Amino acid sequence: MRYVLEIAYDGSDFSGWQIQKNAPTVQEEVQKALLSVTGVNCAVTASGRTDAGVHAARQVCHFDCETTVPAAKFRDALNAALPAGVRVLRSAEAPAGFDANRSAKRKTYAYRTYFSPTQNPLKDRYAVWIKGSPDFEKLQYICRLFEGEHDFKAFCASGSSVKTTVRTIYLARVEKSEGDGYTDVIFTFTGNGFLYNMVRTLVGTALAYSSGAIGEERVLRALGGDRSAVGKTMPPQGLTLESVDYGVKLFG
Amino acid sequence: MRYVLEIAYDGSDFSGWQIQKNAPTVQEEVQKALLSVTGVNCAVTASGRTDAGVHAARQVCHFDCETTVPAAKFRDALNAALPAGVRVLRSAEAPAGFDANRSAKRKTYAYRTYFSPTQNPLKDRYAVWIKGSPDFEKLQYICRLFEGEHDFKAFCASGSSVKTTVRTIYLARVEKSEGDGYTDVIFTFTGNGFLYNMVRTLVGTALAYSSGAIGEERVLRALGGDRSAVGKTMPPQGLTLESVDYGVKLFG
Repeated sequence: MRYVLEIAYDGSDFSGWQIQKNAPTVQEEVQKALLSVTGVNCAVTASGRTDAGVHAARQVCHFDCETTVPAAKFRDALNAALPAGVRVLRSAEAPAGFDANRSAKRKTYAYRTYFSPTQNPLKDRYAVWIKGSPDFEKLQYICRLFEGEHDFKAFCASGSSVKTTVRTIYLARVEKSEGDGYTDVIFTFTGNGFLYNMVRTLVGTALAYSSGAIGEERVLRALGGDRSAVGKTMPPQGLTLESVDYGVKLFG
Repeated sequence: MRYVLEIAYDGSDFSGWQIQKNAPTVQEEVQKALLSVTGVNCAVTASGRTDAGVHAARQVCHFDCETTVPAAKFRDALNAALPAGVRVLRSAEAPAGFDANRSAKRKTYAYRTYFSPTQNPLKDRYAVWIKGSPDFEKLQYICRLFEGEHDFKAFCASGSSVKTTVRTIYLARVEKSEGDGYTDVIFTFTGNGFLYNMVRTLVGTALAYSSGAIGEERVLRALGGDRSAVGKTMPPQGLTLESVDYGVKLFG
């Protein structure tokens, strides 16, 4: 029997999703909780890895297990066994042929920043501070250029081995809200897949363009594959995997 | 010369404001940073203590120091010396006769909760999870009863030594926002002063009333001074000191 879980985690507490030696990972915590609930070792497969420090609001994963635990009961049983930084939001039997990784159709990531004269410790865990005030119109303009099908190889950390670096971004949006001396600026990207570090480098490039550090011509060169043209890769704590879309309703 | 600072801190990292042995406190961190910047020991006085785990968005404090550091430079100099959990937002010379504690006219606290079927690790640092959904109309109704001058002794942790337990709450408001399966419910209290644990116990009482655990008559008994009538004291991480009002403009 295959089960599917929707989980949230605070990435600050973990060295990413994927299990590794001598470092706390989300995958290991979920597998340990499953072992304690079912009594058997179950490998857990997520929609994709998240890096060290990256958060997830609605990550999706699956596992195969012969158990008498009803699918809907997995949520509370696992939550009782998980550390505070990880929670199962929903659990269900997986549809026939479902694979959390290979069945994923679209993913949405958010990258949170805030602009202000000084840093705010109450925002720093889930957003990245940028000194000053944003040129919001320039951010909106450049994000629109990211939409569509591009070879994003320039936005991908070197050394990653993927078959193709072509991806489609269906939506690249930037929103701001102002209050109490802070301007929160949130980038949202929905795409059919994202390369390693791609969102963090897209945001770094957008910010470099909006600050005037690089021009539109250089952004277009980056979208054309020129690695030397991209902005810096932003830090992980601003990034959250918001949702994964499978084109089917997974939870009742 | 007296200086005034506006500071923000993430209370999760500290055992409260007030300096104590063998535990990290905000007061100690600010005093250590001042020593490293000015070379002299300066005692720092806040508008009031905050308890272990309680956050501050805009705490105000003062200190006396003979120094050549210009008032406006203290912000960046202190921030370079402070740990990540504390930041100075603004610094200035204090007005004549100013005392961060005794000159305070009004304080505003926020208490953050969220209602949902399961806990969310991305919300737990600054808000408290409540299972289910809120009866918002009952929360609004009972918060209005808190407004005005009352003897809040029933809402005050026993053992605290204050001259009077009479306080005036100018505003007790509750707001909600819904999204993505969560209902965020934020309580805001503005008053001329608050007793130890008072806000946390007011919120616990409001929630007990809204859930039907206690009736209006019992809330009125609590407001009349009956300690046995109050709801539970809510945990610290939902509480933030939002601002302190001195009736004068402190920062240019």
